[in-house]
Amino acid sequence: MPEAQLKHFGWGREGEGLTPAEENAALNRYAQLFGVDHFTEKAPPALTGIALRPPHMTPPGSLAPICSTEAYDRIVHTYGKSFRDYSRGLDGNYAAAPDIVSYPRSEAEIAAVLDWAGSAQAMVVPFGAGSSVVGGVEPNIDNTPFTAAVTLDLRCLDRVVEIDHISRAARIEAGAFGPALEAQLRPHGLTLRHFPQSYEYSTLGGWIATRSGGHFASLYTHIDDLVESIRMVTPKGVIETRRLPGSGAGPSPDRLLIGSEGILGVITEAWMRLQHRPRFRAGGAIRFADFFTAARAVRAISQAGLYPANCRILDPQEAQNTEAGDGHSAIMVLAFESGDHPLDAWMARALECCADHGGTPERPDERDAHREGAAEQWRTAFIRMPYSRERMIRRAIIADTFETAITWERFEAFHNEVKAATEQAITEATGRPGQVTCRFTHIYPDGPAPYFSFHALGHHGAIEAEWRAIKTAAADALIAHGGTITHHHAVGRDHRPWYGRQRPDLFAAALRAAKQALDPRGVLNPGVLIDP
Amino acid sequence: MPEAQLKHFGWGREGEGLTPAEENAALNRYAQLFGVDHFTEKAPPALTGIALRPPHMTPPGSLAPICSTEAYDRIVHTYGKSFRDYSRGLDGNYAAAPDIVSYPRSEAEIAAVLDWAGSAQAMVVPFGAGSSVVGGVEPNIDNTPFTAAVTLDLRCLDRVVEIDHISRAARIEAGAFGPALEAQLRPHGLTLRHFPQSYEYSTLGGWIATRSGGHFASLYTHIDDLVESIRMVTPKGVIETRRLPGSGAGPSPDRLLIGSEGILGVITEAWMRLQHRPRFRAGGAIRFADFFTAARAVRAISQAGLYPANCRILDPQEAQNTEAGDGHSAIMVLAFESGDHPLDAWMARALECCADHGGTPERPDERDAHREGAAEQWRTAFIRMPYSRERMIRRAIIADTFETAITWERFEAFHNEVKAATEQAITEATGRPGQVTCRFTHIYPDGPAPYFSFHALGHHGAIEAEWRAIKTAAADALIAHGGTITHHHAVGRDHRPWYGRQRPDLFAAALRAAKQALDPRGVLNPGVLIDP
Repeated sequence: MPEAQLKHFGWGREGEGLTPAEENAALNRYAQLFGVDHFTEKAPPALTGIALRPPHMTPPGSLAPICSTEAYDRIVHTYGKSFRDYSRGLDGNYAAAPDIVSYPRSEAEIAAVLDWAGSAQAMVVPFGAGSSVVGGVEPNIDNTPFTAAVTLDLRCLDRVVEIDHISRAARIEAGAFGPALEAQLRPHGLTLRHFPQSYEYSTLGGWIATRSGGHFASLYTHIDDLVESIRMVTPKGVIETRRLPGSGAGPSPDRLLIGSEGILGVITEAWMRLQHRPRFRAGGAIRFADFFTAARAVRAISQAGLYPANCRILDPQEAQNTEAGDGHSAIMVLAFESGDHPLDAWMARALECCADHGGTPERPDERDAHREGAAEQWRTAFIRMPYSRERMIRRAIIADTFETAITWERFEAFHNEVKAATEQAITEATGRPGQVTCRFTHIYPDGPAPYFSFHALGHHGAIEAEWRAIKTAAADALIAHGGTITHHHAVGRDHRPWYGRQRPDLFAAALRAAKQALDPRGVLNPGVLIDP
Repeated sequence: MPEAQLKHFGWGREGEGLTPAEENAALNRYAQLFGVDHFTEKAPPALTGIALRPPHMTPPGSLAPICSTEAYDRIVHTYGKSFRDYSRGLDGNYAAAPDIVSYPRSEAEIAAVLDWAGSAQAMVVPFGAGSSVVGGVEPNIDNTPFTAAVTLDLRCLDRVVEIDHISRAARIEAGAFGPALEAQLRPHGLTLRHFPQSYEYSTLGGWIATRSGGHFASLYTHIDDLVESIRMVTPKGVIETRRLPGSGAGPSPDRLLIGSEGILGVITEAWMRLQHRPRFRAGGAIRFADFFTAARAVRAISQAGLYPANCRILDPQEAQNTEAGDGHSAIMVLAFESGDHPLDAWMARALECCADHGGTPERPDERDAHREGAAEQWRTAFIRMPYSRERMIRRAIIADTFETAITWERFEAFHNEVKAATEQAITEATGRPGQVTCRFTHIYPDGPAPYFSFHALGHHGAIEAEWRAIKTAAADALIAHGGTITHHHAVGRDHRPWYGRQRPDLFAAALRAAKQALDPRGVLNPGVLIDP
């Protein structure tokens, strides 16, 4: 049976989504939070109800077989999955649709598309699975010198080409979706073990281009650490870095390409570091009096050199929202995994660190309780979360997240400032208090990666502006108090103003010069990261 | 008592060096290896016997207080500590001496030197402690558009400026030598724990500029992992990256500066990640039938997720040379260290991995035997090694090392090819067989960093050419068989031809463009890494 097609409005494929019970539970929680008894519902236009301008260009005959100007293709490649994308989709605004969507099957075809686009004054947007939440794949020609836009969808490059069992590495094409990639590795007992929340609807190339953050809460957090070498097609030719376990030969070429968000070239494949599938597990949920106390336990664990696979903490409100807690305690979801050895010593020491801060295990007699209770409850909520937005936005509910990283010594004040600024902006923008919660997604010896969620009730016709006001206040606070504008969601178009304040001006000058060397016409994804 | 001055020919300070007994032991071993009964000795010229051309320039009055044209200053800043450097020093050839050595005390003075040099058509070489073994600090104006050279010695910037105990980090000036830096951290119970072999005579800035490899055999191998943020003075102004535990905002600015070998700017300080000083240790030496069997045990340990502080293996000959073995067994020097927890479980599992490959612990009843026996013998030899070269080269003994990294599946064939090519080159270049040995310095889940030592008996007057022939054959083999030209010694001038084959051409184009944006006149360290 062929897979259902990807939704033009929403997460995943047609037929997937919240169950009516899940949706009602969420709406009831929101009704209580906002003190309302009903929501005004607005439906997004059906596919056939969306008006698109005619394409500004047609592909040359040689590329016609891999190009589409069908409305469905243009519509599903207009946006990623950010709140702003959904709000425009809800309004039926697809003015930024690409003129052409191409589906290259080889590097040669990618090079041909780049050549043609360059000569035709068209910009080119590399596209993985389109789950960007930062405006990373929007082919918007406004305020550019370009007269048209071509989206370059990598989905045809989806193979695991080669597996090296000895070194535990694989050469994988950039368009491989998470599940397809893991399915090809599983028979070999190997796994990439990179599981961002978008895992089902994101690709290897997208992860590398955006410095995606995966499953591991510590040690191997970003995709950066899993990359052994990269191939990238640029308008000037192919870059292929050498496959090495480590090197000290000049600045790392890989690290210039990782996080380049499509502005330097199109990632076509990479040798990736794999792991044996986990055979040993230990874990569970631990309750703490409050979020900052839990954070101090996380700091102890992260500075102990124990490297848990999971060490997330949820503040009391977030724990309650995901039904992992009662709203009075902070929860830590702790797990160790290994393909090699039992983890009793690791878990025992981590629990000592928790006990030092008053943490009490939910099920103290079970050292492998991470698939039960609060831990499992949180996991389920985490996986279902992306399906929620397309339903809530119909009720003008503005639910979004932003994430950052900060060193430990600034964390508590930083958290309070960011949370207060966001709460205040919600009230000012929507005329009604909302909610801001926090968890940690990743931890480092020198600081956590806090992940904030916010919930506000907006007004149909105004939600994009309301969202923008809240987002702006939150991002201003992140940057003013020393955080990064993104720990693993990328910069895209949405984070540009704050990235502009964060990165050194002379680094931007160097990056701009590097782009000019690889993409002299500046066709690649203009609008993200830097001005060309 | 003031410290003795740095030697103009040799490692460390005047008065330091091999004892006569150590020197005789080395010479006896070499006499046996080469089948000779004596060596012809040639002495390097005394300081007063070295002729220098007059400086081509004089500093402006404002910079005169921080500038020197004294012969001693110019001579000790002519070379690093590579074999080629010593061979030219032995000949009294200091044609590449800088015209002026400056000792800036602030970023403002660094900027002033860069401005003045740029306007005076002079190149500028940033200089830490001068222990480069790859020609990284040679102010050679030949084949450049420059009429003079200024060396910028950072030694006056040597303070630990700020310590953050909560996040375990410190802001440290780039000119701090290893021991001075650790001495300032020790009272706080903290350590950077970055101990390259050059530790006593290298600086934080030098480590960052060259992607130095430190103490840890796994996990935190390169200085890269320990950098939280960097400040750099470029000819266009200051770059300061944001202090963050992790980030996904665009390509990492730090990773462009790390390994830039002085071509983009002068590193002035960095926030560095620290650790608590180790309180728990486990370790020892393990004997294996041969090097490849030991390597397979290393692979098992490195893929097990145990992260030993030390997991070096010495081939039988190298073990014998350092008096850690009898020449028949390969030796693994294994150690775990923690500031937090006992390491029994870690050590027990690592020893199981060793036993799976026939490894037998030297002292099976002692789990903390890493300060005794073969392990301690090797440690002593390791620390004394840099003092040997200045004595052996007087006898035309060509003793040098080169290091690389390679994925596991290619390691055995790679090792054999590299070793054979180097052995053959020794015989061809010197007319006599020599010796090539190998150890691992660092290990990764996907491959080791093999470190080769070679020993040849050359001929006075020809040793530089003989060394170059051997080095060329070895480096050709490294690159042809898939390794990196350097894992942690850097590229400098000596590795340029092979780095040119290793890095993608388009990466070099991007790096050249980035340099042009930061250093438009190209004054900074021309000759290393890339052509400006």
